[in-house]
Amino acid sequence: MVQPGSVGIVTPRTATFDQPLQLTCGQTLPSYQLAYETYGTLNPDASNAILVCHALSGTHHVAGTYHDDPKNIGWWDNMVGPGKPVDTNQFFVIGVNNLGGCHGSTGPSSVHPDTGKPWGAAFPFVTVEDWVEAQARLVDRLGIRRLAAVLGGSLGGMQALQWTLAYPDRVAHALVIAAAPKLSTQNIGFNEVARQAIVTDPDFHGGNFYAHGVIPRRGLRLARMLGHITYLSDDAMHEKFGRERVTGEHRFSLDVEFQIESYLRYQGDKFSERFDANTYLIMTKALDYFDPAAAFNGDLSRALARAKASFLVASFTSDWRFSPARSREIVKGLLDNRLPVAYAEIDAPQGHDAFLMDHPHYQQMIAAYLQRVAAECKARRGGQP
Amino acid sequence: MVQPGSVGIVTPRTATFDQPLQLTCGQTLPSYQLAYETYGTLNPDASNAILVCHALSGTHHVAGTYHDDPKNIGWWDNMVGPGKPVDTNQFFVIGVNNLGGCHGSTGPSSVHPDTGKPWGAAFPFVTVEDWVEAQARLVDRLGIRRLAAVLGGSLGGMQALQWTLAYPDRVAHALVIAAAPKLSTQNIGFNEVARQAIVTDPDFHGGNFYAHGVIPRRGLRLARMLGHITYLSDDAMHEKFGRERVTGEHRFSLDVEFQIESYLRYQGDKFSERFDANTYLIMTKALDYFDPAAAFNGDLSRALARAKASFLVASFTSDWRFSPARSREIVKGLLDNRLPVAYAEIDAPQGHDAFLMDHPHYQQMIAAYLQRVAAECKARRGGQP
Repeated sequence: MVQPGSVGIVTPRTATFDQPLQLTCGQTLPSYQLAYETYGTLNPDASNAILVCHALSGTHHVAGTYHDDPKNIGWWDNMVGPGKPVDTNQFFVIGVNNLGGCHGSTGPSSVHPDTGKPWGAAFPFVTVEDWVEAQARLVDRLGIRRLAAVLGGSLGGMQALQWTLAYPDRVAHALVIAAAPKLSTQNIGFNEVARQAIVTDPDFHGGNFYAHGVIPRRGLRLARMLGHITYLSDDAMHEKFGRERVTGEHRFSLDVEFQIESYLRYQGDKFSERFDANTYLIMTKALDYFDPAAAFNGDLSRALARAKASFLVASFTSDWRFSPARSREIVKGLLDNRLPVAYAEIDAPQGHDAFLMDHPHYQQMIAAYLQRVAAECKARRGGQP
Repeated sequence: MVQPGSVGIVTPRTATFDQPLQLTCGQTLPSYQLAYETYGTLNPDASNAILVCHALSGTHHVAGTYHDDPKNIGWWDNMVGPGKPVDTNQFFVIGVNNLGGCHGSTGPSSVHPDTGKPWGAAFPFVTVEDWVEAQARLVDRLGIRRLAAVLGGSLGGMQALQWTLAYPDRVAHALVIAAAPKLSTQNIGFNEVARQAIVTDPDFHGGNFYAHGVIPRRGLRLARMLGHITYLSDDAMHEKFGRERVTGEHRFSLDVEFQIESYLRYQGDKFSERFDANTYLIMTKALDYFDPAAAFNGDLSRALARAKASFLVASFTSDWRFSPARSREIVKGLLDNRLPVAYAEIDAPQGHDAFLMDHPHYQQMIAAYLQRVAAECKARRGGQP
């Protein structure tokens, strides 16, 4: 038996779309680019494609590594690859950077064609609905009529859900992991603190910091520090850092003292170097806005009536950002519509971040579900791979 | 029967202490002042005194109002007054602003006697132990040998606990509410984000912002916004704000949109006007440092062996900042030492802030416990009040 491996060296691509995209906010993007990667081989009838949607700070670089940057391993490399749960020997897997992103797709840091300068604050607020629309065009471009599956965790899970509502006939399976049908008040509150940290940073300059040759590093750093606390469970933080000190003694100063402080500062610093502040704002607003039930007077079951896909919904016991109760709301809405749904509540201590981590039960479950999907694809093709 | 009432107009006082105070950090304060208020009448043998310790942003103004500022009602006015749970008809109640504070006690915004300028960053980091030491001198000054009770919520509960360890013979009862024997890793993480928001605010000037005629408003505002999320339960925020919007429609901008955003910004703005940034840093560090078990290899039971008081420990079911499990750690430590302890886990939806709110079960319980304390005082005096 072959050990599960890496997809190896991958090459990001860019697709340009010149057909204007009407956005939920009312504005129109005259044209846009999407950065994407693919792994595995599309079969002749294009029935084995899986779209992976990323979360708040993710990118199109889902798996493998780059020739010129071998340490840059895809963010879900433990999940996607030959012999891995999302098996690239069987599936053609697509990773895409969302519109408004800062890793190759058109976003606030991209140059506006009319001005020759970065979009900055002028970049429109995009929604989960807009992302799915933009992704659908990429899927068209790749010659795929119907996706075998759409898969995502957290904000990515919201996109997977939205795919089944916007394009019921184009998604066979949706894997909605560590997600919620809408943010809670507390979720919005945390996002708002992060946003205010960024917009009140004097280096933000109303979103047009590019022109000033600065970045709102302080704000991004705080946003990320706060984010990390909410991605981990209290128990996981206790296990990892406890009340351990960088130094043995109390410092009685504002220098870094507890290990958790060191960890959060490091994560914040690193993030502030690599992520665009306007993209962060757009991503958090997209999270806040997502609420498919809103158009149905808050009735999620009616909102989900359009869906035709089969679902795997998964949550993690220690996730307090999108708790299992939020996933169960989705399950209930799907069951109310007699849609096929499997639900797994995985006993994992890591909190929200568990969806990105190695966890045998979780990974075996995704693998088993997708094996069934692969078998379906094969059966439909009369046994041909 | 008389309706419970207010203590009425109160007058804050200041006590000056010229005996140097040796602090845990190694520094010595040559002299200091404490702002305090008292309500009710001290009985002839000074046996009916209750000390109320404040939490992170509290003050000595516990109850009543001011002649020249009638809207400024004490922060625990619903708990302290004639006929109220902490009944000023029976007890002599003391509220004190802690050392390092910014409401009259010596702190970073006080003028340093040697320089004629605010202490600023030079003010030493004080601990819960230091506060109790400073409070004990105030209690001496008031002619009280033994407190009938020490009472506090959150960080105030930690002080109540510390009183029983530092002065076992001077506390008859300790009421430790919504507290913890030490902060969790997550608690420290939240404090650290708040601190970093303040110290990276360009207006902080390394803590010496007074000299620049500015205050680190942005940082304090973020710290308070974040604080408020952790003081409330997810459910309480949902009940109060849900996903209600200030405007009916999506704004697709960074202007305030959801009610929760409006609430948090308002709370942050208000706080940044009234609270000293250096005091905030000192208070959060005091929280982080508190850990009476540390000197006993983490063994809380051994740490509590010194205590001789009777205890009421109370927690609130929806408090996720200092969850009931944390209070139960204290209860276990006390029981291991065969100390008399009553424990109440109050079913309240408001989260950590519940300790400040009207809640019949909670208030009746405090009232009933303190009635017993009053009866003890009376019995000891041979039936005299």
